[in-house]
Amino acid sequence: MRPTEVASDVMEENGRRRVLIEAPSPTVDGGRYPAKRVAGEALLASCDLISDGHDVVGGALLYRRPGEKEWVRVTLEAKGNDRFEATFTPDVIGRWEISFEAWIDHFATWASGIAKKAKAGQDVTVELLIGAKLLEEAAARSKVTLLADVAKLTADAKKPVDERLRAAIAPDIVALVARNPDLENATRTPQAYPITIDRKLARFSAWYEFFPRSTGPEGKHGTFADAEKRLSYAAGMGFDIIYLPPIHPIGLAFRKGPNNTLNASATDVGSPWAIGAKEGGHKAVHPELGTLDDFRHFVKRAKELKLEIALDIAFQVSPDHPYVKEHPEWFKHRPDGSIQYAENPPKKYQDVYPFEFECKDWKALWDELLSVFLFWVENGVTVFRVDNPHTKALRFWEWCIGEIQKKHPETIFLAEAFTRPKLMYALAKGGFSQSYTYFTWRHTKDEFTRYLEELRKPPVSDFYRPNFWPNTPDILPEHLQFGGRAVFLQRIVLAATLASNWGIYGPAFELMEHVARPGAEEYIDNEKFQLRTWNLEREDSLRDVITRINWIRKENAALQDLTSIVFHETDNEQLLCYSKRSGDNVVLVVVNLDPNHKHSGFVNLDLDALGIPWDERFQVHDALSDARYYWAGAKNYLELDPAIMPAHVFVLRHKVRSEHDFEYFL
Amino acid sequence: MRPTEVASDVMEENGRRRVLIEAPSPTVDGGRYPAKRVAGEALLASCDLISDGHDVVGGALLYRRPGEKEWVRVTLEAKGNDRFEATFTPDVIGRWEISFEAWIDHFATWASGIAKKAKAGQDVTVELLIGAKLLEEAAARSKVTLLADVAKLTADAKKPVDERLRAAIAPDIVALVARNPDLENATRTPQAYPITIDRKLARFSAWYEFFPRSTGPEGKHGTFADAEKRLSYAAGMGFDIIYLPPIHPIGLAFRKGPNNTLNASATDVGSPWAIGAKEGGHKAVHPELGTLDDFRHFVKRAKELKLEIALDIAFQVSPDHPYVKEHPEWFKHRPDGSIQYAENPPKKYQDVYPFEFECKDWKALWDELLSVFLFWVENGVTVFRVDNPHTKALRFWEWCIGEIQKKHPETIFLAEAFTRPKLMYALAKGGFSQSYTYFTWRHTKDEFTRYLEELRKPPVSDFYRPNFWPNTPDILPEHLQFGGRAVFLQRIVLAATLASNWGIYGPAFELMEHVARPGAEEYIDNEKFQLRTWNLEREDSLRDVITRINWIRKENAALQDLTSIVFHETDNEQLLCYSKRSGDNVVLVVVNLDPNHKHSGFVNLDLDALGIPWDERFQVHDALSDARYYWAGAKNYLELDPAIMPAHVFVLRHKVRSEHDFEYFL
Repeated sequence: MRPTEVASDVMEENGRRRVLIEAPSPTVDGGRYPAKRVAGEALLASCDLISDGHDVVGGALLYRRPGEKEWVRVTLEAKGNDRFEATFTPDVIGRWEISFEAWIDHFATWASGIAKKAKAGQDVTVELLIGAKLLEEAAARSKVTLLADVAKLTADAKKPVDERLRAAIAPDIVALVARNPDLENATRTPQAYPITIDRKLARFSAWYEFFPRSTGPEGKHGTFADAEKRLSYAAGMGFDIIYLPPIHPIGLAFRKGPNNTLNASATDVGSPWAIGAKEGGHKAVHPELGTLDDFRHFVKRAKELKLEIALDIAFQVSPDHPYVKEHPEWFKHRPDGSIQYAENPPKKYQDVYPFEFECKDWKALWDELLSVFLFWVENGVTVFRVDNPHTKALRFWEWCIGEIQKKHPETIFLAEAFTRPKLMYALAKGGFSQSYTYFTWRHTKDEFTRYLEELRKPPVSDFYRPNFWPNTPDILPEHLQFGGRAVFLQRIVLAATLASNWGIYGPAFELMEHVARPGAEEYIDNEKFQLRTWNLEREDSLRDVITRINWIRKENAALQDLTSIVFHETDNEQLLCYSKRSGDNVVLVVVNLDPNHKHSGFVNLDLDALGIPWDERFQVHDALSDARYYWAGAKNYLELDPAIMPAHVFVLRHKVRSEHDFEYFL
Repeated sequence: MRPTEVASDVMEENGRRRVLIEAPSPTVDGGRYPAKRVAGEALLASCDLISDGHDVVGGALLYRRPGEKEWVRVTLEAKGNDRFEATFTPDVIGRWEISFEAWIDHFATWASGIAKKAKAGQDVTVELLIGAKLLEEAAARSKVTLLADVAKLTADAKKPVDERLRAAIAPDIVALVARNPDLENATRTPQAYPITIDRKLARFSAWYEFFPRSTGPEGKHGTFADAEKRLSYAAGMGFDIIYLPPIHPIGLAFRKGPNNTLNASATDVGSPWAIGAKEGGHKAVHPELGTLDDFRHFVKRAKELKLEIALDIAFQVSPDHPYVKEHPEWFKHRPDGSIQYAENPPKKYQDVYPFEFECKDWKALWDELLSVFLFWVENGVTVFRVDNPHTKALRFWEWCIGEIQKKHPETIFLAEAFTRPKLMYALAKGGFSQSYTYFTWRHTKDEFTRYLEELRKPPVSDFYRPNFWPNTPDILPEHLQFGGRAVFLQRIVLAATLASNWGIYGPAFELMEHVARPGAEEYIDNEKFQLRTWNLEREDSLRDVITRINWIRKENAALQDLTSIVFHETDNEQLLCYSKRSGDNVVLVVVNLDPNHKHSGFVNLDLDALGIPWDERFQVHDALSDARYYWAGAKNYLELDPAIMPAHVFVLRHKVRSEHDFEYFL
């Protein structure tokens, strides 16, 4: 919570401002960072308005669109316990701002008091004159003639007291005065709180990562033209974003061979993350993939399929990168004249030079790095997956993403940081639209529950949008190595329904690639270091399940956000049960976390959270298997066989409201 | 949590500051209000220091004494999960300030890296030159010759590598460099966070309220001279603060008679809260109590008994108060020319006029009210119980208490507000040292546990110091009316051991006065409206139990703070069990909440919280009854008979460290 007013010498200012504004929401670190929301959805803003005594408090939410000076006012409504709220629906993306204003509503206070006095049979003739004066003042500042008329009537001693009273305290009149408040002694929050309004894609997205160089004919380096053919395959599975590892020229110096070996042969393709060679650096395309024009064509084809392309931006260079000669000042130099390569002592990564973000010439370095993003934006890229952002200066990201989104608020940034929790959160606060998470290392009911309870609520949910990945080229977790098909199915359902953003690295994932390089939690014959050929048509491919889950996500608004998640009790530690809700749409997921055994048990549903009356029968329709069950009450039995499908993704229906619904229900 | 840095255009400032400072503590609403602590006790300050990558982060807590410009630096220590902390002990009362500073410790980072490289057998000769340069720089800025010497040795190619390495990365050297950091790229919190350092009495106090006018001979109005005799009685029970209802001249207009009746006779004494008559107002003494000199004598006598006098400051006036004629502009005027009396429609309080804090002349009003406090401070009063502060402007209190404490940091303010929770907290944030609470209306195990869990932790514990009162002249709760002696005993133990501040309104309390005026939760024949004579020597007086509990509180540091409280499980809903701890001193309290029946059951102790090894026998010594029991492990049986004593207040002992301890243990 942050200071909502400047602590200054109150005698210097207006001591008659009686209302305090506290705990404004949504805010991140008291307005230091923007909160995040999406366009087209109602934004609920709230704050505490605290005043002495029992007078009626009035308040307004103020908001303004990106770049506009004018504030729009929305009346705050009291919700009990001194909390007030209002909603509005941001209609454009960009950096919006909100603030709050509050005052004592003397007229409403008066109306409430005189009503009680009249009810108790007290003489209110003097009170009516007080109200008439307040109405006159309201009429004067609002120029609303109706108020002037009511003021006159209220003051008119010739009219019956009853008539005067009824006119003055009519709810419409009280509301009209409230909408035209006397702001002389109003309190205003001392700052505007920024809110980043993103496209919905920033909160609800399915990512598919693949190596374009592995899309060619067997044994040949794939090109963007080859990769274009892969697009319809990914689109068919229902993904929104295609994410490519770095597409730039690959350095030769210290090039890595297959399986991360040190001595690459002349034919080895190297790691795409060793960026930069004589052909160019971060703004160039690897010649074997094609030309910049080919890339543009690839992006165009993706757009036709309603896919967006995410580029991997890794701010590090191979020793062959043009920057090394052109800007040696951006790197750290050792006393022996060499440039400092990356290291994690005692490990050495001689094929990679990190930038020195603290270098004297940092401004030029930062400008250049910014220009890399802008270059790709100009070439049709709207989504960026940033490699290891946590090893680059935090202030750089805040500045860089801010600059890009000023002109291109449609851009989305995914932070690939697997690091300390507060550092991951700091990156998200600084501007990353989405973030990788610890999902991969969460396994038990307790672990999932605690992690999601942290993610679903403010402060975290106001700035951090998790993106759950069962695998990445760098991470083949132990459970995928040894758990078999059931674990793959489990992780699909968990990733796609716990979070609203999810992604896989394919085709390794859908083809259940699971052999690790000995001693590493990483794929053997990893595409990071070599070409691979994939048989996409294999019968055991998980393609259909993935297609189904992405379709379920699109059909059910409940799955398009994370924050509504509620966990339900089960009497079996291996059964994880949770629901999400969006209006009438309710989805209930149950996952058997044990890939080896069938489990059964009772779920004890929080019926309130599901919006289901305790005495009503309801249908749970498994959107995965299409099976339908009829349940009633909180306690319901189920069993899940991992050999068939380790999860239910139930859509709930409980009301027969029309013939059509009735049919649907059956 | 509040913004810890100004969000500005980072390109305008120093982008090389790589560390973020977040979640500084203790702070209230991000520094908008001061946190509260007491002098002479270690103050733990902490914050998150978040940097990119894996470099070693260094940080300092900065603090400064009231009115001083110079900051004192204390090195922050890493406590895991990017949290850092440091302590210092404020030695004077007043408004202190803290802030934080952080930077990358390049030398410690280097030392950690080279150690790993050397261990892995890598050549470190080039690395040694890097370290030598960092040491040279540290020597230059610190003027510590030792660092210059080590720099020289580290760079000396003629010396064995081992020797150079050992010298450079010696823990003493790393620490010495850390204490002399390069602050060029340090991050500093953008503001100072205020901390009010009070006397310990602000946190640990026992209050005794009585009406001086009831201390005279039967039927006669008591004087300060009479009341002086009551002081040793209260001191004997172990109270620290004597709190008197308003001592000012009492108005005649609309004077209330006994039991709040409307038509007082000529002999009725009136309510002390109807302040002001022809004899004077808030700076005068009611003539029947004596003179200002008599009051001063009373204060002097109290001081001899180590008692402080708390005055009740009620900012409202009787229609006879001199302010009404001298400053009509401070009151609200009705269209019929009358002054608005207090009301809570439809109820009218015609004997009282409230001030209008929003009046045009508010500055003069505020100045005058401030001068009331200062007048009494000059006459020896250091503690103020403020009547209904929640019906006066919040900003007024913040300004007023701030002004008083600038000159008189020893003053203590108790807020008598029984109102909405956020308003009660707002008063505490604004400066009140202590606050009345909802204790009186908490009865069950669940209610006590939840309320104390809220009070014991930040944010609340950083600004709100609860003062638990079983009764007040205004509040005779139902349980005291009907529960009998056991409830009185229960409430003594609960109030005195749950909170570290407690108080009673006596002698009504110790004499178990319990008859209510019909239809009111208030004493019949209330001293607010009439004189009373009390027989202090009655055999059934609770005086001895109160004396004992106040003695136990003084003997046991654990009871002198609220924040260490831990609740322990019991298998009986009527048994409430909690402990507090201060260093070696551990107190465990068990209360039978049912006044009518004996209850028994098992407590399931959190032994870690008690600091007791799971396999060690320990003694629980009931400081109330002097009984001693020997317990072992977490589960222990007990029974409590409310007809005897509804509570245990156990002092725990578990180690036989010396002969003396051994005897004590037995």
